[in-house]
Amino acid sequence: MNSQSQPLIDRLRSGDTRALARAITIVENRAPGWSDLLKSLFPLTGKARVIGITGSPGAGKSTLVDQLAKHYRKEHQSVGVIAVDPTSPYTGGAILGDRIRMQDHYSDPGIYIRSMATRGSLGGLARATADASTVLDASGRDVIMIETVGVGQDEIDIVRLADVTVVMLVPGMGDDVQTIKAGIMEIADIFVINKSDRDGAERVELEIRAMQSLAMRADRWSPSIVKTVASEGTGIGKLAEAITEYEKYLDKENLAQKRNIENWQERLVEMLRDAMLEKARSQMSDGSLQRYAGEIAEHKRDPYSLVEELMAQIATEPKRP
Amino acid sequence: MNSQSQPLIDRLRSGDTRALARAITIVENRAPGWSDLLKSLFPLTGKARVIGITGSPGAGKSTLVDQLAKHYRKEHQSVGVIAVDPTSPYTGGAILGDRIRMQDHYSDPGIYIRSMATRGSLGGLARATADASTVLDASGRDVIMIETVGVGQDEIDIVRLADVTVVMLVPGMGDDVQTIKAGIMEIADIFVINKSDRDGAERVELEIRAMQSLAMRADRWSPSIVKTVASEGTGIGKLAEAITEYEKYLDKENLAQKRNIENWQERLVEMLRDAMLEKARSQMSDGSLQRYAGEIAEHKRDPYSLVEELMAQIATEPKRP
Repeated sequence: MNSQSQPLIDRLRSGDTRALARAITIVENRAPGWSDLLKSLFPLTGKARVIGITGSPGAGKSTLVDQLAKHYRKEHQSVGVIAVDPTSPYTGGAILGDRIRMQDHYSDPGIYIRSMATRGSLGGLARATADASTVLDASGRDVIMIETVGVGQDEIDIVRLADVTVVMLVPGMGDDVQTIKAGIMEIADIFVINKSDRDGAERVELEIRAMQSLAMRADRWSPSIVKTVASEGTGIGKLAEAITEYEKYLDKENLAQKRNIENWQERLVEMLRDAMLEKARSQMSDGSLQRYAGEIAEHKRDPYSLVEELMAQIATEPKRP
Repeated sequence: MNSQSQPLIDRLRSGDTRALARAITIVENRAPGWSDLLKSLFPLTGKARVIGITGSPGAGKSTLVDQLAKHYRKEHQSVGVIAVDPTSPYTGGAILGDRIRMQDHYSDPGIYIRSMATRGSLGGLARATADASTVLDASGRDVIMIETVGVGQDEIDIVRLADVTVVMLVPGMGDDVQTIKAGIMEIADIFVINKSDRDGAERVELEIRAMQSLAMRADRWSPSIVKTVASEGTGIGKLAEAITEYEKYLDKENLAQKRNIENWQERLVEMLRDAMLEKARSQMSDGSLQRYAGEIAEHKRDPYSLVEELMAQIATEPKRP
């Protein structure tokens, strides 16, 4: 345990929302003490249910998450939501706006909502989301929902954090529903057809069933399909049941631990990569980086040989005190 | 120059499509000799025009790229297309299918099309695309088009390779067009409104103009907006003109070189990171990674301290012969 972080940890463990917000900000921005904080929090984690919710823009994710949060609150479970918006590299305007409204809406400290927009690059978002989830878990939240747009590599890295992954579809997504589904077929533990009062809901269900009939998952789970109209609260109870059912399956088959180990293998490699990147950046001053880039842009030097030379230098560099 | 790669390089420089395909496969898979091949090819690059084309699934990217390729062929320019599909981590079915059809369609060796699906993770796709672009450039293709879905971090890394970035929108994308546009506003040098015969094309144009009025780009370029119906070939000439116009602007303002240097700064850091990661992976056997992950999953060890320990080990590890 680290003595400096201890007062903050005590406050966030007691349910103090401001301490929670501050702890997430520290780990998100890698502010001084972030590493000690995470080291102290990690042993306190592993109790929360982590639910990932993904789907295209317009699928109604934030409304569904809202409703699900209310559902869990009625069951006296505390909820943390991480709303990730990787569509915007510079701004997080629209979604942040939604979230502020949502936060206003709840005077209940049992629901904590945090928006994350892409900051920096190089997988920073997946890392920040993982660390925020660690903080929420350690703070004692019963349920953590991670909400993210789309199905790019970023999202897949993010969704991997969850024990249960819910993929949302809506009727009338157009001809490219096939393209989208190819990428999410493997990650969906539960499908939600939202706005299911619209024309085409049956067709979406048939398409999911058709794809399911083509391939069996490695864990032999057949993802259930739940129809919702999130804006009216319809189907939310059914969804919560489907989530519990999958959690029970994970337990029974002892899959949760297996998945957890696989995820940590990936995450360890990623963490090691990030640490190395920092080391590389710190060893190469901005000046020399710019000079090298200039020489490459003018084709006076090839980058592949340069990287080999730099690697040899780093390997032989004496350790700094 | 490397003597082993030389026969392959001679063949691909002479326009041999099979040699081109083989060279891309070598660098994509990091097959033996990939590094020497890229070192030899790099000095031959820098002549191709590199155009990035991005947009949501269903925007009609492949049709537009088709039409643009035909346009450039009429101007006797040779074309290389890299079609990137990061939506699917495991399959590349749908898009690959399209591409095979497209390849059938062309008996013209002046158009070469290459599909890339996500393989592995950790920015592997951006790296593979960059290397494939290097091979195409060195092979003497006049125009390289890089086509990619969406606007996640992967796509932004990929788009950064291009001199000119075309962002495609279609009418009727729904309420979340704002969310999508926030992320692409900064990377679009040219907007294409495809399927512009549909209702709502005017509205999309007004929305782009409204966003443009809010912020000035650092390079003071005001992205042009081109309306197309790619399936009918409408507007393709205008798009080609807009691309040329932006290229002239880049030349006049000497921006191309500046951008190139900035891009190489980023890419160098990424290449260095990847090289370090490989070194780390080779030093950490699968067995030890799995054991560490198991200890973390059981909360016997915290991953943050472990990474610090591993970094210290890697720094002090004697270089292997």
